[in-house]
Amino acid sequence: MKLIKHGGVTSPRGFKANGLSAGIKRSGKTDLSLIYCDQSVPTVGVFTKNSIKAAPLLVTQEHLRNHSAQAIVANSGNANCFTGDFGLIYARQTAELAGALLGAEASEVLVSSTGIIGKPLPFLKIKKALPALVKGASVSGGHRAALGIMTTDLVAKEVAVSIQLSSGDKVTIGACAKGSGMIEPNMATMLGFITTDAAVSASMLQKLLKRAVEYSFNRITVDGCMSTNDMVTLMANGLAKNTMITRPGKDYNKFYEALHYVCLDLAKKIVMDGEGATKFLEITVNGAKTEKEAKDIAMKVANSNLVKTAAYGSNPNWGRVAGAVGTLGLDITEKTLKIKFTSFKKKNIQIFIDLNRGRQSATVYTSDLSIDYVKINGKYS
Amino acid sequence: MKLIKHGGVTSPRGFKANGLSAGIKRSGKTDLSLIYCDQSVPTVGVFTKNSIKAAPLLVTQEHLRNHSAQAIVANSGNANCFTGDFGLIYARQTAELAGALLGAEASEVLVSSTGIIGKPLPFLKIKKALPALVKGASVSGGHRAALGIMTTDLVAKEVAVSIQLSSGDKVTIGACAKGSGMIEPNMATMLGFITTDAAVSASMLQKLLKRAVEYSFNRITVDGCMSTNDMVTLMANGLAKNTMITRPGKDYNKFYEALHYVCLDLAKKIVMDGEGATKFLEITVNGAKTEKEAKDIAMKVANSNLVKTAAYGSNPNWGRVAGAVGTLGLDITEKTLKIKFTSFKKKNIQIFIDLNRGRQSATVYTSDLSIDYVKINGKYS
Repeated sequence: MKLIKHGGVTSPRGFKANGLSAGIKRSGKTDLSLIYCDQSVPTVGVFTKNSIKAAPLLVTQEHLRNHSAQAIVANSGNANCFTGDFGLIYARQTAELAGALLGAEASEVLVSSTGIIGKPLPFLKIKKALPALVKGASVSGGHRAALGIMTTDLVAKEVAVSIQLSSGDKVTIGACAKGSGMIEPNMATMLGFITTDAAVSASMLQKLLKRAVEYSFNRITVDGCMSTNDMVTLMANGLAKNTMITRPGKDYNKFYEALHYVCLDLAKKIVMDGEGATKFLEITVNGAKTEKEAKDIAMKVANSNLVKTAAYGSNPNWGRVAGAVGTLGLDITEKTLKIKFTSFKKKNIQIFIDLNRGRQSATVYTSDLSIDYVKINGKYS
Repeated sequence: MKLIKHGGVTSPRGFKANGLSAGIKRSGKTDLSLIYCDQSVPTVGVFTKNSIKAAPLLVTQEHLRNHSAQAIVANSGNANCFTGDFGLIYARQTAELAGALLGAEASEVLVSSTGIIGKPLPFLKIKKALPALVKGASVSGGHRAALGIMTTDLVAKEVAVSIQLSSGDKVTIGACAKGSGMIEPNMATMLGFITTDAAVSASMLQKLLKRAVEYSFNRITVDGCMSTNDMVTLMANGLAKNTMITRPGKDYNKFYEALHYVCLDLAKKIVMDGEGATKFLEITVNGAKTEKEAKDIAMKVANSNLVKTAAYGSNPNWGRVAGAVGTLGLDITEKTLKIKFTSFKKKNIQIFIDLNRGRQSATVYTSDLSIDYVKINGKYS
């Protein structure tokens, strides 16, 4: 597997992208993004499990029923969530307008939004900006698209890798993501757009994405808050002309490995850029009866405000880790529970928890809880 | 029901108490407390559901198997949790020494600790201080006992009320509590000691306390962190000479009402004095299918760092409330969910959530998440 320097969603062949300022963000920063290819291609998505689902998420789920898409239009600065009938109308109209400009069916255009909940989407601004967005799209526009989905993110999050399949064909996977706040699992509560030139059947894509997300975006948490808007999509245009991956096997595994790398890389970048984050915590639970148990406990520790503030303060208060582990009420005692950790003074902290009651493990990643997190979220609106 | 001014654990007849500095806290503040009466009386307790249980909690559970006790010795500054065999030995020896000084069986003395986890209990300091603790106990010592259980609490938490039973007998309930951090439900994750001169059978006491705790201490959260040490006890010495309450009925209900008032008063005081708290939030969920559903959703909102920082910043970001409500994955949509709230600029904020799917309700109380919470918990050790 080869990491592509400065790679992103336009690293795989045949994808164009763009990002510009439509004026949704008062700051004037890039807030509207487009990623597309020349025709409809197998595309799948995974979505937030929050009951309250944003309008664009509902529309995208509808448009992905046929497991096919040609383009994604995403905006930041407004979540278009809890925005009533107009929210849905605007999401649909965005897809229609972009489709018309691209020569695609509206149902082949996915829409996505991130930002504040409950404020009307400034649709006219989007409508006005769409022609320039489409016109300016190019094979070097991946970074601009990554900029257009940022909210409180401090850095754009992109990655691309290439691998060689057993046939000798080289395939590339590229992606961008945004995170920062409202990051908790139960599906990647963030936005992530992944592209690939590999030929993979839609059913395999779905299987691959679901698993890759489970072991990456679903293993991170910044503040334990699940979002209403978040989605990860994977488009596969097949331009690598490899023998299509239609079942599990050698190429499926190779592709999975690369896809998982891409997802985990972005997930870690989201944690490192978590709102106010000053530390990166890796929490591993071993000796659990089931993987779910290991993950649940690791998440409980990762979401403990007491553990997170201890990390922030470089204060190795492992009693708080023990307290968090015990919260789930499992049959664990201080005689069987083992906790080890690396120095809390470093930027990267590893915490190892051994439950000594089984053979399953899980690792999750989180950031600390800092004064800046409180400042950012006390002011944001 | 009459509220007793400056009342506390020694307001009911026959209870003496004391608090002094044994030197456990480096600050030299009061850190050792005693509450007792002249003989063993019906006593019950409820305890943390954390799997990791502190040594004094295990010893107290053992000593309460007969539903009877004469005294409580509690220290702050050290949780005596995750302290191995010595932790248990010290907890038992504390009960033995206090028992010897009071002329009570060790098994009639309850022990309780709060403070940092994982550091050896400075038992010699406690041993040395016990004679003076017992000697100085008096019917006016309730406030000193309340001081001795404080950790990061800024104010002592006490309350007492008296009621008249149907027989005309006046009975009094007094209590003190500590809270501040690691406050989440699943039993009052704090310390609370309640005394009464009412005559109530142990089985009724247990029923009364369990219910009163469920609708008070179990309805508050400061940081969603469940402690390893926390307990609420209720001692009833019967000196009011009322007809003993041995079954549900009129006097049982009157007593419950007063007991619940005492517990809720302390629970609210704990929230108001939550670490770094600048706001008091009352979150009511209506229209739920079950009371548990209402409580779970209210707690999810109460524990949302995004809602709590919004409260801190006087930022009425109700989208975050909606996002938190949706987290549980219930069948709720933006069309049915109604959210109302009072001004976020005030110190007291009320949030009303109507799920419109049933007739059950629950109210929980929490504080905001402030810069000071992070400061306090980044440094504490």
